[in-house]
Amino acid sequence: MKKILLIHGPNLNLTGKREPGIYGRVTLAAINEEVVLYAQKLGMQCTVFQSNHEGAIIDRIHEAADEVDAIIINAGAYTHYSYAIRDAIAAVCLPCVEVHMSNVHAREEFRHHSVLSQVCAGVIAGFGKTSYLLAVDAVKAMH
Amino acid sequence: MKKILLIHGPNLNLTGKREPGIYGRVTLAAINEEVVLYAQKLGMQCTVFQSNHEGAIIDRIHEAADEVDAIIINAGAYTHYSYAIRDAIAAVCLPCVEVHMSNVHAREEFRHHSVLSQVCAGVIAGFGKTSYLLAVDAVKAMH
Amino acid sequence: MKKILLIHGPNLNLTGKREPGIYGRVTLAAINEEVVLYAQKLGMQCTVFQSNHEGAIIDRIHEAADEVDAIIINAGAYTHYSYAIRDAIAAVCLPCVEVHMSNVHAREEFRHHSVLSQVCAGVIAGFGKTSYLLAVDAVKAMH
Amino acid sequence: MKKILLIHGPNLNLTGKREPGIYGRVTLAAINEEVVLYAQKLGMQCTVFQSNHEGAIIDRIHEAADEVDAIIINAGAYTHYSYAIRDAIAAVCLPCVEVHMSNVHAREEFRHHSVLSQVCAGVIAGFGKTSYLLAVDAVKAMH
Amino acid sequence: MKKILLIHGPNLNLTGKREPGIYGRVTLAAINEEVVLYAQKLGMQCTVFQSNHEGAIIDRIHEAADEVDAIIINAGAYTHYSYAIRDAIAAVCLPCVEVHMSNVHAREEFRHHSVLSQVCAGVIAGFGKTSYLLAVDAVKAMH
Amino acid sequence: MKKILLIHGPNLNLTGKREPGIYGRVTLAAINEEVVLYAQKLGMQCTVFQSNHEGAIIDRIHEAADEVDAIIINAGAYTHYSYAIRDAIAAVCLPCVEVHMSNVHAREEFRHHSVLSQVCAGVIAGFGKTSYLLAVDAVKAMH
Amino acid sequence: MKKILLIHGPNLNLTGKREPGIYGRVTLAAINEEVVLYAQKLGMQCTVFQSNHEGAIIDRIHEAADEVDAIIINAGAYTHYSYAIRDAIAAVCLPCVEVHMSNVHAREEFRHHSVLSQVCAGVIAGFGKTSYLLAVDAVKAMH
Amino acid sequence: MKKILLIHGPNLNLTGKREPGIYGRVTLAAINEEVVLYAQKLGMQCTVFQSNHEGAIIDRIHEAADEVDAIIINAGAYTHYSYAIRDAIAAVCLPCVEVHMSNVHAREEFRHHSVLSQVCAGVIAGFGKTSYLLAVDAVKAMH
Amino acid sequence: MKKILLIHGPNLNLTGKREPGIYGRVTLAAINEEVVLYAQKLGMQCTVFQSNHEGAIIDRIHEAADEVDAIIINAGAYTHYSYAIRDAIAAVCLPCVEVHMSNVHAREEFRHHSVLSQVCAGVIAGFGKTSYLLAVDAVKAMH
Amino acid sequence: MKKILLIHGPNLNLTGKREPGIYGRVTLAAINEEVVLYAQKLGMQCTVFQSNHEGAIIDRIHEAADEVDAIIINAGAYTHYSYAIRDAIAAVCLPCVEVHMSNVHAREEFRHHSVLSQVCAGVIAGFGKTSYLLAVDAVKAMH
Amino acid sequence: MKKILLIHGPNLNLTGKREPGIYGRVTLAAINEEVVLYAQKLGMQCTVFQSNHEGAIIDRIHEAADEVDAIIINAGAYTHYSYAIRDAIAAVCLPCVEVHMSNVHAREEFRHHSVLSQVCAGVIAGFGKTSYLLAVDAVKAMH
Amino acid sequence: MKKILLIHGPNLNLTGKREPGIYGRVTLAAINEEVVLYAQKLGMQCTVFQSNHEGAIIDRIHEAADEVDAIIINAGAYTHYSYAIRDAIAAVCLPCVEVHMSNVHAREEFRHHSVLSQVCAGVIAGFGKTSYLLAVDAVKAMH
Repeated sequence: MKKILLIHGPNLNLTGKREPGIYGRVTLAAINEEVVLYAQKLGMQCTVFQSNHEGAIIDRIHEAADEVDAIIINAGAYTHYSYAIRDAIAAVCLPCVEVHMSNVHAREEFRHHSVLSQVCAGVIAGFGKTSYLLAVDAVKAMH
Repeated sequence: MKKILLIHGPNLNLTGKREPGIYGRVTLAAINEEVVLYAQKLGMQCTVFQSNHEGAIIDRIHEAADEVDAIIINAGAYTHYSYAIRDAIAAVCLPCVEVHMSNVHAREEFRHHSVLSQVCAGVIAGFGKTSYLLAVDAVKAMH
Repeated sequence: MKKILLIHGPNLNLTGKREPGIYGRVTLAAINEEVVLYAQKLGMQCTVFQSNHEGAIIDRIHEAADEVDAIIINAGAYTHYSYAIRDAIAAVCLPCVEVHMSNVHAREEFRHHSVLSQVCAGVIAGFGKTSYLLAVDAVKAMH
Repeated sequence: MKKILLIHGPNLNLTGKREPGIYGRVTLAAINEEVVLYAQKLGMQCTVFQSNHEGAIIDRIHEAADEVDAIIINAGAYTHYSYAIRDAIAAVCLPCVEVHMSNVHAREEFRHHSVLSQVCAGVIAGFGKTSYLLAVDAVKAMH
Repeated sequence: MKKILLIHGPNLNLTGKREPGIYGRVTLAAINEEVVLYAQKLGMQCTVFQSNHEGAIIDRIHEAADEVDAIIINAGAYTHYSYAIRDAIAAVCLPCVEVHMSNVHAREEFRHHSVLSQVCAGVIAGFGKTSYLLAVDAVKAMH
Repeated sequence: MKKILLIHGPNLNLTGKREPGIYGRVTLAAINEEVVLYAQKLGMQCTVFQSNHEGAIIDRIHEAADEVDAIIINAGAYTHYSYAIRDAIAAVCLPCVEVHMSNVHAREEFRHHSVLSQVCAGVIAGFGKTSYLLAVDAVKAMH
Repeated sequence: MKKILLIHGPNLNLTGKREPGIYGRVTLAAINEEVVLYAQKLGMQCTVFQSNHEGAIIDRIHEAADEVDAIIINAGAYTHYSYAIRDAIAAVCLPCVEVHMSNVHAREEFRHHSVLSQVCAGVIAGFGKTSYLLAVDAVKAMH
Repeated sequence: MKKILLIHGPNLNLTGKREPGIYGRVTLAAINEEVVLYAQKLGMQCTVFQSNHEGAIIDRIHEAADEVDAIIINAGAYTHYSYAIRDAIAAVCLPCVEVHMSNVHAREEFRHHSVLSQVCAGVIAGFGKTSYLLAVDAVKAMH
Repeated sequence: MKKILLIHGPNLNLTGKREPGIYGRVTLAAINEEVVLYAQKLGMQCTVFQSNHEGAIIDRIHEAADEVDAIIINAGAYTHYSYAIRDAIAAVCLPCVEVHMSNVHAREEFRHHSVLSQVCAGVIAGFGKTSYLLAVDAVKAMH
Repeated sequence: MKKILLIHGPNLNLTGKREPGIYGRVTLAAINEEVVLYAQKLGMQCTVFQSNHEGAIIDRIHEAADEVDAIIINAGAYTHYSYAIRDAIAAVCLPCVEVHMSNVHAREEFRHHSVLSQVCAGVIAGFGKTSYLLAVDAVKAMH
Repeated sequence: MKKILLIHGPNLNLTGKREPGIYGRVTLAAINEEVVLYAQKLGMQCTVFQSNHEGAIIDRIHEAADEVDAIIINAGAYTHYSYAIRDAIAAVCLPCVEVHMSNVHAREEFRHHSVLSQVCAGVIAGFGKTSYLLAVDAVKAMH
Repeated sequence: MKKILLIHGPNLNLTGKREPGIYGRVTLAAINEEVVLYAQKLGMQCTVFQSNHEGAIIDRIHEAADEVDAIIINAGAYTHYSYAIRDAIAAVCLPCVEVHMSNVHAREEFRHHSVLSQVCAGVIAGFGKTSYLLAVDAVKAMH
């Protein structure tokens, strides 16, 4: 059974409470529940982790190296400057899917560039909570 | 029944014949067949169009305005400079999903920037032919 | 009797149907009719051409070389990157007026730069359909 | 009866005396006379102002706020760096037409960018003294 | 008794009349009165000067050299390009507080950079008319 | 009674011990005491938080969402690259005053740009410990 | 017997008629005839194609994949922005010689950069019609 | 007898009083006297003008057109952004020598670029008041 | 006896396990042991610290201020953007040697720039674990 | 009889010994012999010069001014920054062909720009030793 | 008696023979003779050196350290990139005058920037051979 | 016995005589002696070469190809622009250590970038003459 680690970066714990025009009104807990169930339905196990701490995200990626088969990450604002998270992803040699709920390319200029994309298998952005479900599908389809 | 127009841009007619390291060995015809069937399974109808001509792609998008409910587009190299296709997408006011088979962000510098993303609902890149299936899922999930 | 070729570039066939906040609600056909009549009133003959195809616009400019005395062109999004249309204008050695219905300088950054301006006699932008009529006046005033 | 304020910026008092290859041999006084008459013919009243002083131009725009219905401005070199004139135009909330006698886009690099365009209704450049007459037409056509 | 010269740059004479969303509805006269009174309350004397002329502002700064103990300046758009005002401030060797009513960093790109900041003691921006009062406090606190 | 959260970012715990030419010789504890008293005098309550951890600052801002009426933040070096703190400030929808003791615009190039300013109400920089007191005044003046 | 496809891009059909200072007075037909004969003399067969349509050039390159041993291309203005033609050249895996009649590096800035060079075997520029003959020699010398 | 107009730009009236490390301790009046005498000694007549007003400098240059044979200008900070003064110099068609007392290339970055140099005959910088005397020599040597 | 603090930044805990082509196959523990012994041999005491947390590294640098005589730091990816670590190093006024195992200048573009170098005594990069031993030598040689 | 000077710049004396993947295995002596013979066959005389010294190359170009009819130059790495060699070529007023054995446009970024191209008649790059032979042909074809 | 070393850089040995529009028709020998005589007239001794070799210029500057009181240098194209000559000038601690015969700021873009200016006392450009004589005057005036 | 070639670039012959704040007071001869002895102590032989001539440095690197096992190079200012020296290092396929006595990253902007680093094994900067000794150690440690 494939195992997935789903990582949410800074401020995503506020999902459903902040800027509903961008992130909708569903809380992160509800999204996580839906993603975990969807993964189960596809025969995979999904663990969830959220932190506002760059270092904690790196620590968690390191732990994942021997535990999971793939990572799904929405690194929030760290997407745009955390070369340290990038190195962590590259180091653990796990396939990684970069996810964004909003279409980052249609927002502020600084959100157009991701320092993570180069070390990820692929990117999914712009479909709200569905972005996460698509990422689970993507992991399912990987060999 | 939701209708989708799937557009493939320049050189994608060679898919399955060129650079298999990047695009795999499945031909475009085979991918199209799989996508159309998958859409049918989800209760949607998918029409396919491929052209190497920027103008032909724009013409086809215009025709779609009254025919379909959503567009899925892999604009190939036009992704990076065709402001004319961008304007066409913006003009028809249809939800549009930008798709790439390869992870464009991990390839040459000029492929890191898309002039289409800002007028699309979202972006899916890096999962080979699965990128198209995920895009169908994404359209399905839109209201 | 002076002859003018009026060229409309990509997506302008949708004028009057798209983004009325920017382009107004008058269709391209109606605008063309008004421009042709206005030219007649000033003792000039105006032929109209629209295409979404960069190559077709270039072909048409070449044909114009021996047919007309001036070109009025709204090249749409091609304004911002079609060095090929630029070369076509330069090659035929006809006075050319660059026209935009909207004030391109007050829109997205990429619309602030025109690759055509350097080979045109002048530029008129921002007055809706009136931009075309002013261009006809400008041609009239040229010797 | 619509009232127009026509503003000429720095060095334009030398028109007809300097660089005739670019600006022609007609003096500013002659141009002004022609523009005022043309406006009258169209049922509008046109007042003219010229200054080499950025501050004086700003002062004059402020005065215009309660006096005129539209501004036509050829800000000369101030076009390219006077954010103060830009703010003045934005503040008085009058429709403004930016005019250039020469095709600024075909001259030195620094003349390709205007800091005024974003707060103007439109731009007319490249038609010599006719540029001013077209601007009067443009104001006439505004509602 | 400490003496302050308060300088308002171009277009600020329109404060209270223009773009109330940004500058509020209080006139410059009213603001000046409040600032002068507040300075008096703190035991300081405040003189006020407004001009749309860059040169006049420079002249006034020169005069201030022997008259006042500190300058408070809202240079309006000159903030972003007047190296001449910058040199004037540097030359008179008086502590200077740069003030903006709006949060310039949250407005257009060109307003994010000030050529004056490097020669000022400090910067206060974004608090409407309160920005001026805080500047008076800041001068008061200087030794 | 208005409540304020005062946040000090990385290395500010060393204030009064490091680079006295820039930050003076008063310790952070002393500054905090003075700020808290000053807030009390103005009828407001001020809580203080310092951390060198980006994530901890984000956590604290989240907690503040339901506790305080305004934030005063000197984010130290995070000012220049922490888009994550920026997102946290934007998310909690509290008025925020950005503070710097030194005039950051007169120091190294990288300190001239703040990624926080766009989501703050205003900025105060360059007045040493007085910068904090002015920020308290600014919060007091907000409605 | 080696087969060559010679492709001429936009506006090159006007060669011999336009800007003789740059392109000489020999027509494209005459040049083509000379190139074909020269190839024959070297024991190779040369087919010629000209189009102003980017898409038609791409289509022709695709067809060439199974027909010819090498491509010689003067892509005209498309040289500078057609990433789609670049991808077509890369896809067909044929050796390609990039040719320019004029010395593009000594003309306008935008002509200094070619998006095709990286996927071509080599570049020949500046020798008028001789550039084409040298390209035929270069193909001859390839193994 | 050759006539020279010597123009001093903004803040140069403070010469001898400000930043003596850069400009020395000799006042502008003393320098002017020395320059005028030196010109006389070389059989030329030198008139002097100083203003902090960009517009006044332009006005003065215009007047000079029919009065003098050459201009020597130290435009102070206007050197770096006054395209209006540049246009004035170009318009009057007089040989112009750009002068700086300090070595502007060894000071702040913004002082490294002059917008006037391109329309001047030559540049002399870095020799204190001697820079002016050398400029007089340079004018003397011109035919 | 000189005391050294050796700091390893993010992901360096994986040394010997990740990308052996770049970092070799020796674990961080083994390297640390060798460095500590080598320092002892040179009569110095070396303490080791590793963290993936930017804030923890800053905290540790602060503690070091009163404990050690020099810092050796391999800040991993933080090297390229942590101005907060830079400020910490500058604040504690200890000589600091920046170390990299790989030759960062021969890797990705973003690794070519270090924000720490300006506040370090020197830099050693490219010699694998030997880089650390050379750094110990360098500290030994400092007075 | 036409005379050619063939100049090889820095490190080209190692041709045939270094990086054979790029430069092949034929030595410079062998190439020179072939080029000289080829020139003879075409009725021209070719002299060869190689130096690693920028100054020596300039000296040799100066000598050539009165000796030869054309220059063929492979300036090696000097191609990318030697404005001094550029000036030498421009000064001697001889037609010059810029040659590269490898396709410089497909190598490192810094090799994409040549400071010599603007003063050369044309450029030939990417055909190994054949590049030199084509350059001889090109000189032959010049009038 | 003050001693001056006059250095001419690459290609200046051709002065009087090349591009007379820019450099005039007087040979370098004639200029040198005039400069040496002029220096003598002012009671100074001037030695002349010309080389096309960057290294030879550096060697000569080093020798000058103990021989002369000032350097006058026209470094030709080395002006724009030779940081090595810059370091040589800085090292010998002699006052240095940078000279150009042509107005480099009115020529190609790459000639607008000098890497030498920052370590020179001053710059004189644009007065033909007179530039050298003015430099001698400037040295004379230095204390 | 391992053989090392130590190369000193332009102006380093002045070491110990120039800018002692940066380079100390020890002469190059003394440093060389110390380095040679240190290499001997480690069982290696070290030859020394200094030149201000870029070409001479390249020649010397070529000679080294068959003579030595490693190169230590302090290329002085050539570090920042000599792509020719870079190519020489790459061509000889010897491990090379780039050395700087000063911390180049803490000096002028242009010294922050090295064109040599990418073809060197590693870099050591900032430790005065100790930098050379560390480089010898680094060579010793290489296999």
